[in-house]
Amino acid sequence: MIHSAEFKNNPKLYLFLPMYYLLWADLTVTPSEMKVMKKLLERQKWLSKEEKKFLLDKLNLSEFPGPNELKAWRKEIKNVKKNGYRSPIDLGIELVKQHTNGQPISFDGESIQSLQEAESELGLLSREVGYLFEQEHSTITSRYEARSVFGVESMQSILDGNQAGLIKKIKETISDQSFAYPEYESIKAQREQVFAWSKALAEQGFGSWAFPKAYGGKEDMEGYFTIMEALSYHDLSLVIKFGVQFGLWGMSIYFLGTEKHHQKYLKDIGTLELPGCFAMTETNHGSNVRGLETTATYNHQDQTFTINTPHKLARKEYIGNAAMHGQMATVFAKLMIDGEDFGVNTFVVPLRSKSGEIVKGVSIEDCGRKMGLNGVDNGLIGFNEVLIPKENMLDRFAKVNDAGEFESSISSDNKRFFTMLGTLVGGRIGIPRSALSAAKSGLTITIRYSNERMQFGPEGGKEVPILNYRMHQRRLMPPLAKSYALHFALKYVTERFLNKTEEEAKEIEALAAGIKAYTTWFTTATLQECREACGGKGYLSENRIDDLKNDSEIYTTFEGDNTVLMQLVAKSRLSEFKEEFSDMNIFTMFNYVVSQARTSVTEKNPIIVRSTDEEHLLDFDFHMKAFTFREREIVASSAKRLKRHIDEGMDSFDAFNVSQHHLVNVGLAYIERVVLEQFQLQINNTKDEGCKKVLTQLCQLYALHTIEQNKGWYLEQGYMEGVKTKAIRKTVNQLCWEIRQESIALTDAFGIPESCLAAPIAMRK
Amino acid sequence: MIHSAEFKNNPKLYLFLPMYYLLWADLTVTPSEMKVMKKLLERQKWLSKEEKKFLLDKLNLSEFPGPNELKAWRKEIKNVKKNGYRSPIDLGIELVKQHTNGQPISFDGESIQSLQEAESELGLLSREVGYLFEQEHSTITSRYEARSVFGVESMQSILDGNQAGLIKKIKETISDQSFAYPEYESIKAQREQVFAWSKALAEQGFGSWAFPKAYGGKEDMEGYFTIMEALSYHDLSLVIKFGVQFGLWGMSIYFLGTEKHHQKYLKDIGTLELPGCFAMTETNHGSNVRGLETTATYNHQDQTFTINTPHKLARKEYIGNAAMHGQMATVFAKLMIDGEDFGVNTFVVPLRSKSGEIVKGVSIEDCGRKMGLNGVDNGLIGFNEVLIPKENMLDRFAKVNDAGEFESSISSDNKRFFTMLGTLVGGRIGIPRSALSAAKSGLTITIRYSNERMQFGPEGGKEVPILNYRMHQRRLMPPLAKSYALHFALKYVTERFLNKTEEEAKEIEALAAGIKAYTTWFTTATLQECREACGGKGYLSENRIDDLKNDSEIYTTFEGDNTVLMQLVAKSRLSEFKEEFSDMNIFTMFNYVVSQARTSVTEKNPIIVRSTDEEHLLDFDFHMKAFTFREREIVASSAKRLKRHIDEGMDSFDAFNVSQHHLVNVGLAYIERVVLEQFQLQINNTKDEGCKKVLTQLCQLYALHTIEQNKGWYLEQGYMEGVKTKAIRKTVNQLCWEIRQESIALTDAFGIPESCLAAPIAMRK
Repeated sequence: MIHSAEFKNNPKLYLFLPMYYLLWADLTVTPSEMKVMKKLLERQKWLSKEEKKFLLDKLNLSEFPGPNELKAWRKEIKNVKKNGYRSPIDLGIELVKQHTNGQPISFDGESIQSLQEAESELGLLSREVGYLFEQEHSTITSRYEARSVFGVESMQSILDGNQAGLIKKIKETISDQSFAYPEYESIKAQREQVFAWSKALAEQGFGSWAFPKAYGGKEDMEGYFTIMEALSYHDLSLVIKFGVQFGLWGMSIYFLGTEKHHQKYLKDIGTLELPGCFAMTETNHGSNVRGLETTATYNHQDQTFTINTPHKLARKEYIGNAAMHGQMATVFAKLMIDGEDFGVNTFVVPLRSKSGEIVKGVSIEDCGRKMGLNGVDNGLIGFNEVLIPKENMLDRFAKVNDAGEFESSISSDNKRFFTMLGTLVGGRIGIPRSALSAAKSGLTITIRYSNERMQFGPEGGKEVPILNYRMHQRRLMPPLAKSYALHFALKYVTERFLNKTEEEAKEIEALAAGIKAYTTWFTTATLQECREACGGKGYLSENRIDDLKNDSEIYTTFEGDNTVLMQLVAKSRLSEFKEEFSDMNIFTMFNYVVSQARTSVTEKNPIIVRSTDEEHLLDFDFHMKAFTFREREIVASSAKRLKRHIDEGMDSFDAFNVSQHHLVNVGLAYIERVVLEQFQLQINNTKDEGCKKVLTQLCQLYALHTIEQNKGWYLEQGYMEGVKTKAIRKTVNQLCWEIRQESIALTDAFGIPESCLAAPIAMRK
Repeated sequence: MIHSAEFKNNPKLYLFLPMYYLLWADLTVTPSEMKVMKKLLERQKWLSKEEKKFLLDKLNLSEFPGPNELKAWRKEIKNVKKNGYRSPIDLGIELVKQHTNGQPISFDGESIQSLQEAESELGLLSREVGYLFEQEHSTITSRYEARSVFGVESMQSILDGNQAGLIKKIKETISDQSFAYPEYESIKAQREQVFAWSKALAEQGFGSWAFPKAYGGKEDMEGYFTIMEALSYHDLSLVIKFGVQFGLWGMSIYFLGTEKHHQKYLKDIGTLELPGCFAMTETNHGSNVRGLETTATYNHQDQTFTINTPHKLARKEYIGNAAMHGQMATVFAKLMIDGEDFGVNTFVVPLRSKSGEIVKGVSIEDCGRKMGLNGVDNGLIGFNEVLIPKENMLDRFAKVNDAGEFESSISSDNKRFFTMLGTLVGGRIGIPRSALSAAKSGLTITIRYSNERMQFGPEGGKEVPILNYRMHQRRLMPPLAKSYALHFALKYVTERFLNKTEEEAKEIEALAAGIKAYTTWFTTATLQECREACGGKGYLSENRIDDLKNDSEIYTTFEGDNTVLMQLVAKSRLSEFKEEFSDMNIFTMFNYVVSQARTSVTEKNPIIVRSTDEEHLLDFDFHMKAFTFREREIVASSAKRLKRHIDEGMDSFDAFNVSQHHLVNVGLAYIERVVLEQFQLQINNTKDEGCKKVLTQLCQLYALHTIEQNKGWYLEQGYMEGVKTKAIRKTVNQLCWEIRQESIALTDAFGIPESCLAAPIAMRK
């Protein structure tokens, strides 16, 4: 065994002590490192044969120093170590000096040089080694911390806009002690709690907010969406229960029924006196709802309809409010008159009495435990020849006249069906707004935790907040930026939806479908990141990421499966293009678009495709051009592709199937352009300088991160070259680094009540 | 209102009936389409002014036909319609003929041509229109279905290999009625059930499988991993409970203890007589476990250790078996002797008596509800000056000698700590194998459902299995291919782990860390896709995707956070490269690697970077070269990057932080190359022709899909050009389409017991 005492006999050998310490201590000694060390010793002309032997023997693996001995070396070395980087050789020289009482020993320059070479060979991290002996080791990564260049309140009022008052009111309600999260003993208890909360909200008038004033409402649809959004900071089961009752059940009566139905039902729906269901989806027909099989057969003799479920797989499924509370339902069924099928129409059908007994002919099965939203009582409903009076047909778009004939101002069954559905697409605005709130909650919890959680750090230094790690920033900063982007986009879509004219209806329905799909996918992905970014803490239910994730999980499916919706959006985009060029033959038009996209882009010049200039990369105009180019190019190439397949004799159904992947991209590129456009517009209209500055960075991050995600596509198109996409990656990293500082304040500006966040890891000290 | 009777007065106008039907029925009439139609009518020279007026009037929106009227038109048109495509104009000519009793009416050619032009302008889908009137509409998409070109049993025996017998035995056990999934009334009930199952497994000898024969075991570590893998078809809480007891608690005694500990504990651990914990992680130190703060202070007078938790955030957290069943724990604590810190060592500390009373000084808190794995009783453990006898130190790697001094054959505390951990990395093999089973279950359920679930279809045709849709294939076929790829890779890693020599230890630890991270991320992503791909059914707990996802969710965190692990892998790769070039100065070496990677790749010639030749794209050699190029290039560029930063004076800790994103890619590229290598090797050794054929396709899909995911990188490097990456995307689509046919058989070959799948949507009729 080596003892440092042995060195004392020949103090100049202390030169090697630090290097030997490293070999035995934290760095692994590989056989090749041993070889390097041996070669090095051989070369030292100032060492005698005996000294070399002594030193070489010390490298023998069986001659290891004991743990106590190693500790003693460390102490010696630490003694001569001052702050700042010193190489092992430097430290060795210092040690020799000390042990020779300051009497200098001269090593020839060549030896020192060979020693220094050896240092660099002995480990990529030899520099890090210097820190092994330090008390303090401060790095840029360690020192970095949160700050804010903007006023949180100003930002919050930009986000809340004209809805600030209502938002405040809702937040007060859900911050009340009665809205504290209980531990549920059972699913039943959870459902009862959610019902009680819904009732409390109804009592404060939130349920009827969108209904006509005559029936207790405020006729404020914008407010209704705000309520959905703000309630989503609290509990998503509550939001969905609320949405089923007041949105789906209530709005189906409001939009599909006429005066007599409004009078009869709306008031009681708004107060939750009359809980009800929206019974559209069937087991066999979810996305393809047009194919549903429940029938409503008209009986002219007694002026009734018979509602019937032809087989088990045609039962209504996943119906909220069905398993426990619903007393009535808006049932979607094919209307049959004298054996003729008049397509899907809607009917009010009783399910339960006031006291909860199930109506004869109706059968209800509980959907049981779900991945999330267990506070909502979803169920299956079957109808066995249930008779309802004629007046129960919701007859805004079609009716059976006194002669027993079908009447409608919309000739085609399909068109009528889609018109009916079109009135109900509010859910495609309510859901993404709810989803975004869930993502904001997840980000707030995770970013706060990551700012406090310390883990690892430089050798000899303090541990570092994990939010200072670049990978962690990469996980959380782009979603933070996107949550701001989507906030403004959803505001825009809401406004357009509320003020839509008949001509715009199709376009806005597609816009809503697209933003629903885009936002809910974003939320799922973001909460997944949040879970992982919080590690074990993110797995504990007390920190709420599990509920946020599991409850919002189904958002990508309901109100239309996202993949199906994106294809609808794509089809709508294809026909929008048709509108734009109404005088051209459709395929001429596509060729025109393609060639235009190919040639008119001045930005595709050789200097710009290679530009790595920071000013250019951060430029709003560059972002918008890149997004627009992608949008146009993808829609044009999809059209060309479809045309080619069909021209080659492929069945159009097959042609669309072959192109599905592209069609989804058509939808994504469109929505991404809209989102960027609205974000840029918002920034142009922002007066507060601090807010404007950080919003600009967020917008740049959103834009560049999106471009980076699609860099393969841009490179394929020759729209950018590798040098530029690499520079974009670097800029994204830099923006993440900068926004990290503002990120606590940025999540504070969401203004989520602390009682709703509730996660212990996110609590303010 | 139009009535078809009006046409009767002038039968030649029937020419327009089908076109008018379309305008009023399924297609939306846009203002521009109206314009086209009007222009068209103006141009018809063979129509009188009155006839034009009559027809134009019919286009007036207020003049719509009634629903009944539209149905009558449809019947008329259907009457003249035979199968096969007929354009509206063709159908119109047919109708005219019929209403003029076969007496021909001649339209001039120009008119017919302009009518046909109008057709194409009236909708991109005008071809689809022909199908509106058909009874049957069969397309390639509709007809496509499952088949298999290989023997399912042969494939299963390739997968099971030499473990087939043991796998069969385990499957029999978990298929027993006593292992049926209950509905749990509470978390407590779930924990008790999982404990009972563990006990049943222990009784059959599965618990002690890896232990020495002397203590009731089979000394079969390979078998132990097989048990973890096969049990994972059943219930992941059970797997983790099993792993905590027999893997973590048992193996820590086995690998860190010596004979005396084996004798005292191993038998009782194997039979579950002695449930115990593995108490390493602390609240404040998860990933950075080296920093843990629990102390074990040696008291020489009475030959004891005092175990102490210095503050609340230094409690052991997430400890399995702690909240309910654990009687003892292997506790990781800093050993203090006479005020000197000897780093982390391990100690056996009692927690509860046989009857369940908690030992004095020990405090236990339940972690409460978690996102998943609620059958495992995780808890927090605190120690308030708990005294244990000296013999309770697990002393394989270090001990306190009779003189009260610390002794170890490993000098450095850090190295000793990592050596200890190194013996316990079995979890990094058990966990990914368990994860892969969960992914296989999810894929089996989802692919079976998608093969049965019908939704949408061509106009006038039957609905189509959703697995025939390209997007759906894109979601499920690449993960199916990857699950096969990972199966063989995990087999390889297991073998290497079991036969490792001391020199290989570091490399294999990195390999295990990397494959753990890669596989568990894969499982999380796959189960997320499965959930969405099953729509509403995937949200119902009865179909088990929620449990599979939520239970396996934490796999990306425990046994090492994936992002942290991937950085370790990267650091190990950087030093591997160092080994390979042991005689070179390290930075010379990196320069060499970089230049070599840049110049030696003959495949980077202009013909190959643009090649879209199918044979080339499907070629194993091309895949391997592309993977290897990426692996080498990324590791070399990361090294260069680190060097540059450090040369420029950046602190090495900061330099590593700035490079984190690249380091994770170093790990990914390495693991992906290993996975591909093993898959190709497996195929070369496969004799069965049918299996070889489909495995080859799966391997091609794995390779090309991985390249496609990294196409941005390949394009940036100039390793491929856009034409080639586009061709790869197409080939991926085609492979998905082909494998879809085999996919039912491929999931059957996993051989998951039906009772374990249990999902109603996956049940065989």
